[in-house]
Order: sequence, then structure tokens, then C-alpha cells
Amino acid sequence: MRIAVDAMGGDHAPVEVIKGALLVAREDPATEILLLGIADVLKEALSGMGEIPQNLSCRGVPEVIAMDEHPIQAVRKKRNSSLVSAALLVKSGEADAAFSAGNTGAAMAAATLDIGRVPGVDRPAIAATMPTLKSRALLLDAGANVDCTPENLRQFAKLGAVYVECVWGVASPRIGLLNIGSEQSKGNELTKAAFPLLQKDLAGFVGNLEGRDIFDHAADVVVCDGFAGNLVLKTGEGTAEFIVALMQQEMAADPLLAAAHQSVMSVLSRLQSRIDYAEYGAAPLLGVNGVSMIGHGRSHARAIASGIRAARDAAAAGYIAAVREAL
Amino acid sequence: MRIAVDAMGGDHAPVEVIKGALLVAREDPATEILLLGIADVLKEALSGMGEIPQNLSCRGVPEVIAMDEHPIQAVRKKRNSSLVSAALLVKSGEADAAFSAGNTGAAMAAATLDIGRVPGVDRPAIAATMPTLKSRALLLDAGANVDCTPENLRQFAKLGAVYVECVWGVASPRIGLLNIGSEQSKGNELTKAAFPLLQKDLAGFVGNLEGRDIFDHAADVVVCDGFAGNLVLKTGEGTAEFIVALMQQEMAADPLLAAAHQSVMSVLSRLQSRIDYAEYGAAPLLGVNGVSMIGHGRSHARAIASGIRAARDAAAAGYIAAVREAL
Repeated sequence: MRIAVDAMGGDHAPVEVIKGALLVAREDPATEILLLGIADVLKEALSGMGEIPQNLSCRGVPEVIAMDEHPIQAVRKKRNSSLVSAALLVKSGEADAAFSAGNTGAAMAAATLDIGRVPGVDRPAIAATMPTLKSRALLLDAGANVDCTPENLRQFAKLGAVYVECVWGVASPRIGLLNIGSEQSKGNELTKAAFPLLQKDLAGFVGNLEGRDIFDHAADVVVCDGFAGNLVLKTGEGTAEFIVALMQQEMAADPLLAAAHQSVMSVLSRLQSRIDYAEYGAAPLLGVNGVSMIGHGRSHARAIASGIRAARDAAAAGYIAAVREAL
Repeated sequence: MRIAVDAMGGDHAPVEVIKGALLVAREDPATEILLLGIADVLKEALSGMGEIPQNLSCRGVPEVIAMDEHPIQAVRKKRNSSLVSAALLVKSGEADAAFSAGNTGAAMAAATLDIGRVPGVDRPAIAATMPTLKSRALLLDAGANVDCTPENLRQFAKLGAVYVECVWGVASPRIGLLNIGSEQSKGNELTKAAFPLLQKDLAGFVGNLEGRDIFDHAADVVVCDGFAGNLVLKTGEGTAEFIVALMQQEMAADPLLAAAHQSVMSVLSRLQSRIDYAEYGAAPLLGVNGVSMIGHGRSHARAIASGIRAARDAAAAGYIAAVREAL
């Protein structure tokens, strides 16, 4: 497996991206990692990081897409950027997967325009991993397509079902439609029209589920439009941060708890990282005709490493072949 | 002030509803509470509750609308139900406000059909109170209108702004548009079209905000369609429950924390109730031409009391006159 990594993408690039790549290169000698970035910048960053394993290499590129650039314009203009180069390496077959923690819209655009779509997919989706009490669930779309058709949702369901079965190893995945009530009659125009399509086409369809059901693991795949999906992600993160902040206030005021303060805060921080999207490292772009993963812009080395591993695992599991067959 | 209370509405009716009504009647002799319900049932429930204060009275009705009945059909058919009777008392001026923790859709239908709408309002909205680090914010629509137009959102913003100013006493309330990014260009078709309407019409408009910004109190009023609003509420509740469940797991496994277990759990339960929608007691139906409050079906006495107080406060503050003038 060979993973093309955009070393210039993310709020803490290139240092944290390189550190994350090194973690994976050192633990897994069978995986080749190709760092793409401005040659001098990569060289300087790597100089303080100890011995460089043989399975990690660098390729200099002359351009970088910034976090706030207009996605499609940047991808069209900066053909030699680290972000676009990663996608082109997947397209040409030189790499098995691409990873970037940079401009999400640009990574999406590069994947769609340069790698292309799987035949039968109208709109690729961003799939986010949500923590659940039992394990994890895949939520898509998490923000790539804010206005969707029922047919888009049907395709997202297929893409997600194949992913969790093929990459996560979930046998007979259960698919739920994110909604505001469990009865079939509930919902807005989109979800009411999508329900019968999912019911007809997906053996594992379990019906509607609400935001709270995600955490109870009512489904392995949760399907929604990108507006709803992004809202759920951000609200979940916001609630978790809010609880930690309130807990800190409460504990400061309670002498009994002040004694256990350190222990409680360390538990809370573990919980928050379980909930924090960033810790899950990467969101696959599903429906793209090659493995492409995006990391959270705020990622540090640990999240970057987890994203590169996810890219490797999706490629190694043969997701693209499986999804081509299913669609 | 005279509040008509549907004593038969809610999962724990009539006992918890009556207990909640008694709490308010005893603490506030100036407020009259009229319980509506099946005469025998009310009589029996009240018999074990000590002395009945003079400002609490009962009125027997022959019918009850069940939690799972079809809202509009039930309201049209059961004209003498406790739920419809409460709305009719507001319409006739015999009561200043109605409160029901029963079938939400039916309470909405009775308010809209029987009390009517404020001139200039196309669709009344359910307004939910969200906790924030500083105080609280009003989120609307929380689920009454799943598909909305930009003009609906503009009206919701007006209804909410007048409410927090008039009833909560917030001077110059800030209004935010719930979205999936802060820039004006972000969002789906609905939010992109609503943005300029809100900007033009509301002096306190602060632009787009994301789910996480609600908790930071980025706005006093958060405007969205009912699908998005309900999703935010349920996801917030689900995340809070998830964190408490995880915390319990973690603490059981940690001997240092096991010692502080009791204290930590009591803090967590206080936090959860701050987040739990049920604790806020009631959601006003804004845009209705009279004060109508709905309580959460799961409400116990404390939440019922808080809902009745909210109904009283909205009536006493003259919300309806203020909103008629503003629209």
C-alpha cells in the first residue's frame, strides 16, 4: 500500500502532518508513505525528527492551497499543489490512497474532478465516524452536499453500507435514515420521499432514527443530507464542550469534588476525545473512484496518523472494487 | 392571571400535572389555575394531595386526546377534550394562557385552529429554550414546521426577538441564523435565501451560527426550520445522555474515581437536567394569537410547574400585544 499525504494541509502543517506520517511509517513498514509539499519546508521540518524510515519519502511540489481559498477555483488553478498532486497520484495509480487535512472543499473538489466518481454515483459524500456506546457509526453526508434529492440519499446509503461492511468488517450493516421521529410518516419532504427508496433498495434498512439514537447504535450507517449531517456533528461537539465547561464550573465550587478534580478532568478529556470528530482522524470521501480521506484541519499528529491508517485500511480492504460492484 | 391547564396531558397525567399546578398555586396566590380533566379522575387524584388552595379550581370535561392520536383529526373530533377546552378558554378570554403537556401536534393544531394566528404570521412555531454557558437562548422552530420558506424564518426571527425582549427582559436581543458555517455564502438554499431577509428586517441580526455556537451564547434567538431545530434538540439530549453513560462506565473502572462516584454522579445529573429539554418545562407556541405553552410529554411535577410559570410570565408580560404591534 502506498499513501500520498498532503504534508502542507491543516492548521498545524507541516510539522504535525509529518509527525503523524512518521508514526505510521515506523509502526507499519509494509506501508509506503509519500509526503507531498514544498521541498525546503519538508526538509527543514524533517531535520529534527530523528531517523527517517525507508518507507517514508518526500516529493517536492511548487504550490500550496490555503485553508480559506475558494475550493474549485484553487483546484483548477493550482494543479501542482500538494493537495491536487495527492489526488492525481491516486488517479494515475501511483498511490493507493490520498490523505489531506487541508481545505476540505478543495480536497472534495480534487477528488471529484481529478479522481472522478464511481459509475452510478451523482454526488460523492463526506462520511464522518460517530462514537456510539457499543462502537461507532458512519454518518453521511456530513457536509459536502447541503441540498440533496431522495436519490442522493439512496446512493449515500449504498456507499456507506459497502464501506462499513468492507472496511470495518460489519456483517449485514443496519442503515438508518436520520429524521425527527421514528414513524414512516414523519419528516420533511426529502426524508419522506427517501424512505421508500431506502426501504426498497437496502436489505439492512431499519427505518427512521433520531439524533439521540445514533449514540445508542441504532444503526451502523446513518444517512442524511449534508446540512443535517453537519448540524449533528457540530451540535454533538458543542454539547460535549459545554458539558466539560459546566463540569469545571461545578467542581470548582464543590470541595468534595475538588479533591477528585484531576481524575475527573482526565476522564472528561478522554470522553471528549471520544466524541471529538478530530480524534477519528479522517472522513472518507465516498463515491469517489479511488480512496481519498480528509482529516480535520485542527488535527495533531495522533489524528493525522489515525487518518493515514484509515486511508490505508480502506485501500487494503478493496473498498473501491466493492463499491463499483455494488452500484 | 388565569391559566388553563390540560390536566390529562402528558405521560404522567393527571397526578404529576396536578402536583405541578399545586406547586405554582401555593407559591403564587395571585395566579388562578384552572385544571381541565375528567371530573372523577381529577377528584380522585386531588384527594390525596392535602389542602387545595383557593386559587386552584377544576372543570370537568368529557373527553381526552391521547398522546398518539392524529393531531388535526383529534382536535376536530374531540371539541370537549381537556386540550381543546384550554385553547377555547384562551380564545374566549376566560383564560390568559393555556398549558398542555399532552399531544404536541394536537396542542399546536388547537392553538392554530381555535386561538388563531397573529396577523402577519403564516406559520406559528414551537420555541425551545436551550441552555448556554451564560444563560439561555430561544431556538425556533423546534419542530412544528419541517419544511419552511425564507419568509417563514423571517417571521420566526421576529416572534422570537419580541419574546426574549418582552418575556425574558433581554434588551436588544441578538438573532442568529442556524447554519453550517459562519460566512454569508454558506448553507443550503433555505438559509442562503433567508440571510438577506433577516439582515434587512432585524436590527439585532448577528449572521450565521453553527450548532456549537448556541452553547457559547452567540445569540439570544436562534432561527431555523423545524427539521433542523428538532435535530439540534435531540442531538444535544442524546450527546448529554451519552456522556453520562460513558462517564458511568469509566468511573466504575477507576478505583480513584469510584471513591468520588456519588459526588460526580450528582453533578452529572444536575448538568443533564440543565441540558434536558424537559427541565425547561415548556415551549411557547409563537405566532398564535394568545399564550399557549406545551410541556414535554415526559414532564414530572417540577417541569410542569416551570411550564405553568412560563405561561403566566408570558401572559403577564403582555407578549401577545407586543407581538401584534411588531408584526
